[in-house]
Amino acid sequence: MRALEVRNGAVRFIPAYPRPEPQPDEALIRVRLAGICNTDLEIVRGYAGFTGVPGHEFVGEVVACPARPDLIGRRVVGEINCACFNCPACRANRPTHCERRQVLGIVNHDGAFADYLVLPMVNLHPIPDDLPDELAAFVEPVAAAFEMLEQVHVRPTDRIAVLGDGKLGLLCAQVLALVGGAVTVVGRHEEKLALAARWGLETHMAPSYSSIEASSAHDVHAIGGPWDVVVEASGSAAGLAYAAAMVRPRGTIILKSTVADHSTVAMAPVVVNEQTIVGSRCGPFPPAIRALTRGSVRVHELITARYPLEQGAAAFARAAMPGVLKVQLAIAG
Amino acid sequence: MRALEVRNGAVRFIPAYPRPEPQPDEALIRVRLAGICNTDLEIVRGYAGFTGVPGHEFVGEVVACPARPDLIGRRVVGEINCACFNCPACRANRPTHCERRQVLGIVNHDGAFADYLVLPMVNLHPIPDDLPDELAAFVEPVAAAFEMLEQVHVRPTDRIAVLGDGKLGLLCAQVLALVGGAVTVVGRHEEKLALAARWGLETHMAPSYSSIEASSAHDVHAIGGPWDVVVEASGSAAGLAYAAAMVRPRGTIILKSTVADHSTVAMAPVVVNEQTIVGSRCGPFPPAIRALTRGSVRVHELITARYPLEQGAAAFARAAMPGVLKVQLAIAG
Repeated sequence: MRALEVRNGAVRFIPAYPRPEPQPDEALIRVRLAGICNTDLEIVRGYAGFTGVPGHEFVGEVVACPARPDLIGRRVVGEINCACFNCPACRANRPTHCERRQVLGIVNHDGAFADYLVLPMVNLHPIPDDLPDELAAFVEPVAAAFEMLEQVHVRPTDRIAVLGDGKLGLLCAQVLALVGGAVTVVGRHEEKLALAARWGLETHMAPSYSSIEASSAHDVHAIGGPWDVVVEASGSAAGLAYAAAMVRPRGTIILKSTVADHSTVAMAPVVVNEQTIVGSRCGPFPPAIRALTRGSVRVHELITARYPLEQGAAAFARAAMPGVLKVQLAIAG
Repeated sequence: MRALEVRNGAVRFIPAYPRPEPQPDEALIRVRLAGICNTDLEIVRGYAGFTGVPGHEFVGEVVACPARPDLIGRRVVGEINCACFNCPACRANRPTHCERRQVLGIVNHDGAFADYLVLPMVNLHPIPDDLPDELAAFVEPVAAAFEMLEQVHVRPTDRIAVLGDGKLGLLCAQVLALVGGAVTVVGRHEEKLALAARWGLETHMAPSYSSIEASSAHDVHAIGGPWDVVVEASGSAAGLAYAAAMVRPRGTIILKSTVADHSTVAMAPVVVNEQTIVGSRCGPFPPAIRALTRGSVRVHELITARYPLEQGAAAFARAAMPGVLKVQLAIAG
C-alpha cells in the first residue's frame, strides 16, 4: 500500500509499504481522509522517538473486521490509544493511560497517513451519514478539547483565556465557549484571531509569548485579565510561565501543548497564588461527534489545504508554515 | 525593642528597633516564642525582596487592642496575611490572596522575631490553655499542611508520597495520614526518616532528588510507586520533575516548596499523563489548633534547638544546617 513514513528526522512517501493485518479483535480500515496535527510535526523532529507511519486524525471505512462483520462498509473514526485492559491503569478504568499502550501514529503503531490502518474494534466509532469526511477528520482533536470539560469544572460565569491561536487553541476556545463563559483568545496571528472574532470570541494580539512576567499584574490587567481559567495551547516552551501570569490566584491552567522542550518555570508564584495546573490529552469521542454533527463546533474554516498522499512531504512542509491551520491528506473516498 | 533584622543578605540582632504601633483595627502582641521556617532562610537569601524583621510562626500575648480590650492578656497565634477586604480577590472571598496584602515577616510587614509585632485583630486566634507555647508556635505551618486537604480531595484509600523529609514534609505527611491513606516519606536523611517511621509512615531513602527520570517507570515501581498523590516538599528545584515521575497518570502533585529558583521541567509528561499540579500555601488555623491540642499531629519531636533572640544569627545558621529540623527563638514568657 501507499504510506508516508517518518524515519531519521524526515517524512517520505513510500509507494509500497507493508499493509497491516488485523488481529481477531481488530478492524482493517481503508483511510479516506486524515489531518496533520502539530504532534505529527513534532514526531518528525523526534518527539516520542517514533519511526513508522504517522497520523492519528482520520476518517475511514471498515474493510475487514473478523469479529464484527456488520461493521464492514461503515464509515468510522477511531480512538488512538490501544489498551491492554489488564494493567493496573486499565483495571482502574484509565485505558487511555494503559501502561502497555500503543498509540496510533505515535507509539509503536502505524498510523493514518497510509491506504490502510488497523485498530482494535473497541476503538471505533461509526459516524452519522450527515457528517462529511472533512469534518469527521476533526473528531480526534475536538475530543481532545472536550477532555478539558471532563477534567475541570468550567462554569458559565468563568472568564476564560486560551493562549495560542493555532488549530488546537481555536478548537479549545470553541469547546470552552459552549459552556457559556467569556472566552478570550490570546494569539500572535491577525488572520487566526480574526477567525476567533467571527465566532464571537474576544481576541488579544500578543507580541510574543514571553512578554508577560509573573510580577507584571499591570500587563495582565491591560489585556483584560486575570482569568479564572487559562488554557496553554501555544505550543511554546514559554507558554506556561505566560499562562501562570494570566490566571488569577486559585485559578486553573490547563496544559494542552505537548511541548517536547523543557520549560523553565519559576514555581514559587504557582505555590504563592495556589494555582492548579492540569495536563490534558486525549478525550471522549461521542461528544465530539455530536458537536461536529450539530455544527456547534465549527471546523470547516480551519482547513487551509488538502493534498494527495503522494504529496505528503509537501503537505507536512505546508503545515509547518506560519499562518497555516489544518492541512488534510486525501487518501481515498 | 529587640529584633532581628534582614538587610543586604544577612540577619542581625538589633537591640533598639522601633516598636510597632497598632492601628485601631490592630492588636499589639508581645511575642513569646517563634519558629524559623525555611522561607525565613530563603528571605535572607533574597526571596520576596524583604527588608525588615522576619518571622511568621509565633505564639504571643495581646498587650494592646483598642477595639477589643477583652483580648488583652490572651495567648494568641496569628494568620500572616493582612488583607484589605476591598480588592477583587478579597471580595471573591480569597483574602489570603488579597492584591494589596502585607504578609507578616515576608511582605511589607515586620514579623515575629522581635519583642513585639502588630496584626489585624481579625487575624488572631486565641489558643487553649492546654496548648503549650512550643507546640502553639507550630500552628502556622500545620495550618499550611491542612490547606492541602482544603484544596484536594484526599481519599482514605489513596496511596500518598511526600517528597522531602524536612519539617514541612514531615508535617505534610502527618496531616495527610490523618485521612487514613498509606503515606510514604521519600527523603535523604536517615534520622528524619526514622522519625516518620516511628509515626507509622512508610519511608524511602532517595540518593538525590534528581535520580528519577520521567521515563524510568522501573525506578518508580522499585520504591513502591506510582502514587495517587505526591507532595513536593523537597525545597529543591529538581523536586517537581521527580514528583511528576512518582505520580500515576491522572494523579495529583501538590506543590508546597516555594523554591525561588527556576525549575526546568519537561511539561510533555504532565500533559501525556494528565497530571494535576496544585500550588498550596497558607491554610486554615482552627483545624491546626484542634489537631495540635488533641495531639493528632505530633510536633514536639521536630524541635531541634531553642535560642534566645540575641543569638538569632546563630539560630539562623543552625536552622540551615543539614539534619536540623525546627529551631525556635525564645523571646518572652
